Amino acid sequence: MLKKILLVFLLFSFADARADDGYRLWLKYDLLKNTAKKAEYKRFAGFIEIPTEKSLIIRTAQSELKRGLEGLLGNRIAGVAKKSGGIILQRDKTLPEEGFRIETKGGNLVISGPDDRGILYGVYALLRHLQTEQPLTGINLSSAPKIRLRMLNHWDNPLGTIERGYAGASLWKWYELPENLDPRYLEYARANASIGINAVALNNVNASARFLTPEYLIKVKALADLFRTYGIQVYLSVNFASPKILGNLQTSDPLDPQVRQWWAAKADEVYRYIPDFGGFLVKANSEGEPGPQEYGRTHADGANMLAEALRKHKGRVIWRAFVYSPDPHGDRYKEAFNEFKPLDGLFADNVVVQVKNGPIDFQPREPFHPLFGAMPETPLALEFQITQEYLGFSTNLVYQASLYKECLESDTYAKGKGSTVARVVDGSVHNYDFTAIAGVANTGSDRNWTGHLMSQANWYAFGRLAWDHTLSEEQIADEWVKMTLTRDPNAVPVIKNILLQSREIYVDFTTPLGLHHIMGQGIHFGPEPWLTQSARPDWTSIYYHRVDSTGIGFDRTAQGSNALGLYRQEVQNNWNDPASCDLKYLLWFHRVGWDKKLSTGNTLWDELCTRYYRGVESVQWMQKEWNRVRKSVDSEIYEDVAGRLAVQHREALNWRDACVLYFQTFSKQPVPSPFKQPERTLEEMKKLVAIYQLK
Amino acid sequence: MLKKILLVFLLFSFADARADDGYRLWLKYDLLKNTAKKAEYKRFAGFIEIPTEKSLIIRTAQSELKRGLEGLLGNRIAGVAKKSGGIILQRDKTLPEEGFRIETKGGNLVISGPDDRGILYGVYALLRHLQTEQPLTGINLSSAPKIRLRMLNHWDNPLGTIERGYAGASLWKWYELPENLDPRYLEYARANASIGINAVALNNVNASARFLTPEYLIKVKALADLFRTYGIQVYLSVNFASPKILGNLQTSDPLDPQVRQWWAAKADEVYRYIPDFGGFLVKANSEGEPGPQEYGRTHADGANMLAEALRKHKGRVIWRAFVYSPDPHGDRYKEAFNEFKPLDGLFADNVVVQVKNGPIDFQPREPFHPLFGAMPETPLALEFQITQEYLGFSTNLVYQASLYKECLESDTYAKGKGSTVARVVDGSVHNYDFTAIAGVANTGSDRNWTGHLMSQANWYAFGRLAWDHTLSEEQIADEWVKMTLTRDPNAVPVIKNILLQSREIYVDFTTPLGLHHIMGQGIHFGPEPWLTQSARPDWTSIYYHRVDSTGIGFDRTAQGSNALGLYRQEVQNNWNDPASCDLKYLLWFHRVGWDKKLSTGNTLWDELCTRYYRGVESVQWMQKEWNRVRKSVDSEIYEDVAGRLAVQHREALNWRDACVLYFQTFSKQPVPSPFKQPERTLEEMKKLVAIYQLK
Repeated sequence: MLKKILLVFLLFSFADARADDGYRLWLKYDLLKNTAKKAEYKRFAGFIEIPTEKSLIIRTAQSELKRGLEGLLGNRIAGVAKKSGGIILQRDKTLPEEGFRIETKGGNLVISGPDDRGILYGVYALLRHLQTEQPLTGINLSSAPKIRLRMLNHWDNPLGTIERGYAGASLWKWYELPENLDPRYLEYARANASIGINAVALNNVNASARFLTPEYLIKVKALADLFRTYGIQVYLSVNFASPKILGNLQTSDPLDPQVRQWWAAKADEVYRYIPDFGGFLVKANSEGEPGPQEYGRTHADGANMLAEALRKHKGRVIWRAFVYSPDPHGDRYKEAFNEFKPLDGLFADNVVVQVKNGPIDFQPREPFHPLFGAMPETPLALEFQITQEYLGFSTNLVYQASLYKECLESDTYAKGKGSTVARVVDGSVHNYDFTAIAGVANTGSDRNWTGHLMSQANWYAFGRLAWDHTLSEEQIADEWVKMTLTRDPNAVPVIKNILLQSREIYVDFTTPLGLHHIMGQGIHFGPEPWLTQSARPDWTSIYYHRVDSTGIGFDRTAQGSNALGLYRQEVQNNWNDPASCDLKYLLWFHRVGWDKKLSTGNTLWDELCTRYYRGVESVQWMQKEWNRVRKSVDSEIYEDVAGRLAVQHREALNWRDACVLYFQTFSKQPVPSPFKQPERTLEEMKKLVAIYQLK
Repeated sequence: MLKKILLVFLLFSFADARADDGYRLWLKYDLLKNTAKKAEYKRFAGFIEIPTEKSLIIRTAQSELKRGLEGLLGNRIAGVAKKSGGIILQRDKTLPEEGFRIETKGGNLVISGPDDRGILYGVYALLRHLQTEQPLTGINLSSAPKIRLRMLNHWDNPLGTIERGYAGASLWKWYELPENLDPRYLEYARANASIGINAVALNNVNASARFLTPEYLIKVKALADLFRTYGIQVYLSVNFASPKILGNLQTSDPLDPQVRQWWAAKADEVYRYIPDFGGFLVKANSEGEPGPQEYGRTHADGANMLAEALRKHKGRVIWRAFVYSPDPHGDRYKEAFNEFKPLDGLFADNVVVQVKNGPIDFQPREPFHPLFGAMPETPLALEFQITQEYLGFSTNLVYQASLYKECLESDTYAKGKGSTVARVVDGSVHNYDFTAIAGVANTGSDRNWTGHLMSQANWYAFGRLAWDHTLSEEQIADEWVKMTLTRDPNAVPVIKNILLQSREIYVDFTTPLGLHHIMGQGIHFGPEPWLTQSARPDWTSIYYHRVDSTGIGFDRTAQGSNALGLYRQEVQNNWNDPASCDLKYLLWFHRVGWDKKLSTGNTLWDELCTRYYRGVESVQWMQKEWNRVRKSVDSEIYEDVAGRLAVQHREALNWRDACVLYFQTFSKQPVPSPFKQPERTLEEMKKLVAIYQLK
C-alpha cells in the first residue's frame, strides 16, 4: 500500500499541466504531431466562410471549427475569406434533413448541409476526420441520420441525485437556475452535438410534477435556450397525476374534460417559455407511477390526451412501454407485449412508444424485445441504457456498442428476413412517419463525466449508432480511442480489443448462458442469486433462474410460459430447441438439466462454471493488456482505468464465487478441472453481499 | 436572456487557460506580480533543507513548500543546501504540540516545529504569509493551536449522497476504493492541512454499520493512509446497533458482556487496519438512531462502553449531545441540557461530548448552547455546521466566521466574566484534559468544492478559528480574499465588507429579531412559517414562533418554559428582560406584542417588517458591491458569484413576502412606509413554497 500511496503522491500531489482528467471527452483538439498530416490539413485552413444568414447554430459551427482547427494545427484561422485554401460552410437544400456533405471544390473544403444542424454535424465530422488523421485530399464524405430523434434520457432528480447514476451528482443545478449557468451546460451540449444527439429529456421518468410549474419552467427554459445553440431540443418527463398534484383537480382521468383542459393549458404555457419544446416523456402505470389505468383507461387513452394537448405546438409524446405487474405465476417477459400489442394503431400520430431493448430490464444480455416488429402502426422508439445499472456501475469496463449492435441487428422477421430491430426503429420496415431512439444517460458531475473513463465510449457509441446504426462497433471504438486516448498505432488495436471483448467478459462472470436478473436487489450491485423474497416476486432472482436439483433456467417455450410465442415463427425456430438455441440465450428460454451435454462438449454445469471462471481470467487479461499501453496514454487516465480494472477483478471474483457456490448447492457437482473450488464459502459470500444492502 | 446566453457563450464555450474554476481553493501559488516583494522573498528561496529523519509528513512539507515557492517566485528551488539564503525545516521539542516558529537566522529562514505536523503547519503559515504579500525581513512568527482536535465531520452516505450537502456528490468513492484513488483525496488533505485541520470523520452520523466490516475497513484504510501524509487522522461514525446488525447478537445493550466483547474485538480489528485510527463519532437516541436508552441505559453507559473498547488503542469516543424527544408541551431548547447535565462526571476520560453551537439546530442565529459552561467534568467539543443547511444552501452568500465568532465569544460566566464558549472549548475554563472542535463539512464533488465559491471562506474560517479562536473574522476574511480572489487593494476591502455583512443580511431576510426554525420542512429550503403539522411537533414552525393576534415569540423566561434558567444568572440578566434583551435574541426568549415599542423606536411589527425589507435591499447592495470588483477577480468566478447573488435576491424576496404576509394575517397591520405591501399574495407564496415539497 505504501508503494501505491507514494505513486499517487508523485502522480497527483503536484499539478501536472499535461495530466488529463477526462473532462474534454473525445473533443480534444491538441496539436497534431504528424507533420505530414498537419501540412495536408493546413492547405484548407486559411479561413472559414459562413452563410450570410447567421443563426446561433451556424455561429456555433463556425466557432467550434475555428477552435478545432486552431488547436489541431497550431495556427490562427483568419476571419477574412479568400478565394481558395479555406473552408466554406453553406446551405444545400437538396441534402437530406440534418445531413451533410464534405468535399473539395475550387481549392476550398466545402461543408454543406440542408439546415443549420446538418452544417454543424458536418463540422464535427470534419473535425473527427482530422482528429483521427484521415486523408483530406479528395475527400467526398456525406452522411445523414437514419433516425430522426436521437435523444438522451436523464434520470435526474430535482434535488441533484440521479437514479441509477454512478458518476456523481446531476449536471442540472436546479436551485441555481435560471440565474446561474454552469459552464458545463455548454460543454455537455457540445459533446452531444458532436455525435449527433439532438434532444434530451432532462428529468427522471419517475417524474416530479414540479417541472411543470412556472418556477421550474423558467429554469428549464434557461437550459433550452443554451442547448438550442447546439441544435438540441428539450423534453420533460411528466407525472401523469399532475392535474391532481398541480391543478387541484379531483382526478387525472385522461377522458375527463377538465383534465384534458388542464393539460392543454399547461402545454400552451410550456410553449410560451420554450417555443421549440420537444414534448413529454411518460412512465405511467409502472413501478408505482400514476397512469390512465387507475381510471380504467388504456395507455393509448393516456398518451392520446397528452398528444392532443401538444399537437398544435408540434410537440410529441414519448410513452414508455416499460410496464409489468407483480404476478408470481406470470412471466414478466410477456407483459409489455400483452399490454401494448392490442393498442397498435390506436395511438395518435404524434405519439411514439418507447421500448427497452429487451423484455426485462437492461440486463447484460437480453433477447430483443418482442414488441419490435409487432407494432406496424405505431412508431416505436428504442431505449438503451447507457448508464451501467446492471453492468457494474462505474467500476466495470463494459463497451456497450457490442450490446447495442446485437440488439439492432437482431432480426424480427416482421417483413421477412432482414427486418432487423434497427430497420424497425429507423422506420424502413413499417414506414413509420417518425423515428426515435433514446439512451439513458451515464453523465454526472464527476470531472470525467461518466465515472469510468472508458464509459465515455458508451455515450459516444450511443450517439454514433443513433446516427447510423450500420456503423460497426469496431469502427466506433477506433474513432473513440483515437480521439480520446491515443493514436499510437501500437496501442490503438490493444485498447480496441479490450473494448470489443469487454461486454462478453462481463456476461461471462455475471450471467453466462442466458442467466439474467440475479443481481443484488434494490441497488442492483453484485450477485444475489439466492434472493427468494422481495417486495415483488419479479424482483427476486429465483423468479428468473428457477434453479433446483434437476437443473436451471426459465422455460419460455410452449411447454412453459410461451413467451417465445410472442415472436415470429422464424425467431422461434432459432431459439425453440435447446439443442440448437444459441448458448448465449439458452437459459432465457429453456430449463436445462445439470448433466445435459451442450454444443461445447461440456455438461451444463461444467460449461456454467467454465464461463464464470473464464470471465474472471478475462478481467485479468484486460488488466495485462491495459498495462501494455501504459506509455501510450495519459498517466492520470492510465492509473484511473488500472485502478478500476483492479476493482472489477475483485468484483468478478465475488460474482464467480457467489454464483458457483450457490448453484453448486443444487447441482451437487464439483467445479470442473482445471478450475479450483472457490476458497470462500457460500456463507461468506452471502455475508459480503449483505453489506451492500445495509442502510 | 439572449444577451446572457451570448455572454456565457463567449465566456465559457472556449477554454480560457486563465479562467479559474475554483478548484485550487486558497492554495493558489500563481506568480507574484509585486516585484519588490518577490525580490525580498527570493533572498530566502535558495534551497530547502529538511531534517535527516524524513517522515511522510516532512516530505509533504518539503514538497508543498517547493511547489509554493516555485509557483509564487517563478524559479526552481535547488535540492542542495547551501550555507545561507534558504529555508530550513527543523524540529524543536521546546515548542508546544503542533505549533511552529518562523524566524530568520544566519541568513536563512528557519521553520521549527516540535513535531511533523508543527513543521507542516509552519510551512503553510509561511506560504500564507507570502501569498498575502507580508514582509519577510525580520519575521518572527510563532503560533500553536488552542484546541487539540480540529476536525471535519462529513455527513456522507455510502451511496455517494451527502445529507445536507449542496456541492455535488460525496468526495469518497466507496465503490472504487481501495484500488482506485481519486486525485481529489490528496487535494482535499492539502486544503485541510493548510488550515490546521487534523482529523476527519468520514461518514454520516446517521451511520451505516457497513463501515465497520472488513470490506469497508480496507477502503477506510486507503483514505487513512493518504490523509496520514498530511497529518490527518480518520474517525468513523458508528451505528450503535452494530452488534445486532453485524454481530448477529440479540442485543446492543451497552452493559451486556457479549456486546462489550463485540465492540472490543471490533476496535482491535479496526486498529489492525489503521494503527492511528482516531475513534468513533456517535449519534445515539436521536432522530430515530439506535442508542443505549433502548435498553434503559444512559448516554454515559453507551459512550463508556465504546470508550473501553478504544482505550488500549488510545482511541476516543465523540458522543453527540444532539438529542430531543417529540414533546408538544416541552421546549426542545432544554432537552439536551436536561439529558446531559446530570451525566457530568460520569463519562470515561477518553469520551468527548460534542455539542452544537446552539440549543436547536444550526439556525442563522442562536444563543449559545446552555451546556457550555455547565459540564466542568466533561470535555465538550463544539460542533459548527459549515454546510449551509439553514443558510440558503449553495445559492446564498453567508460568511460564517461572524456566526462562529458570535458563539465563541459568548460569555457563559461559568467561572465568572470572561468564561467564553471559546475558553470552555479550549479547556482553559474547566481545565479539560482534551479539547476538540468539529465542523460539518460543506465539501462535495463540485469542481469548486463548496458549490458557492464564497462558501470556501467558511471551510477556511472554520479551520483558522479551530486553530486560533482569537483571530477576528475580519483578519480571516482578509487572508482568504487575498489568497483566493484578488490582492487588488481597491477590491479587497469591498469584498471583505460583503463577507462581513453577509450573515446579518441573511438573518434579516429570513429570521430577524430572534425568530427561528420557520424554514421549509424536510429539505429546510425557503420559508414555511405557516407550517403547523409535521411528523413531529418540534419540526413545525408554529412550535417556535407561536404567533397569534396578540404577538409573537417563545416565552423562555421563568413565566414560560424557563429555558433561560439553564444559564448562569449573569447570562439570564442579559436576556431576561424584554426591554433590555439584545434585539437579535428577542423572540428567542420573549413573547412580544405587535405594538410593543422596541429600542429602535419602532413597534415590534414595524421593526420586523423593516428588517425583512432591509434584508432584501441588502442583497441588492451585495450585488452592486460585487459588481464593483468585476475587473479585479477572475471572470468565471465573477460570473458564478454574480449569478448566485441574483438567485439569492429572488430567494430573499420569497422569504420577505412569505413571512411578512403570513405574520400580517395575525398583526392585522399594514407594512410600514416607506416599504410597500408585497405584490404577491400569501396564497401565491404558499403555492410557490409547496413546489419544493413535491417529490
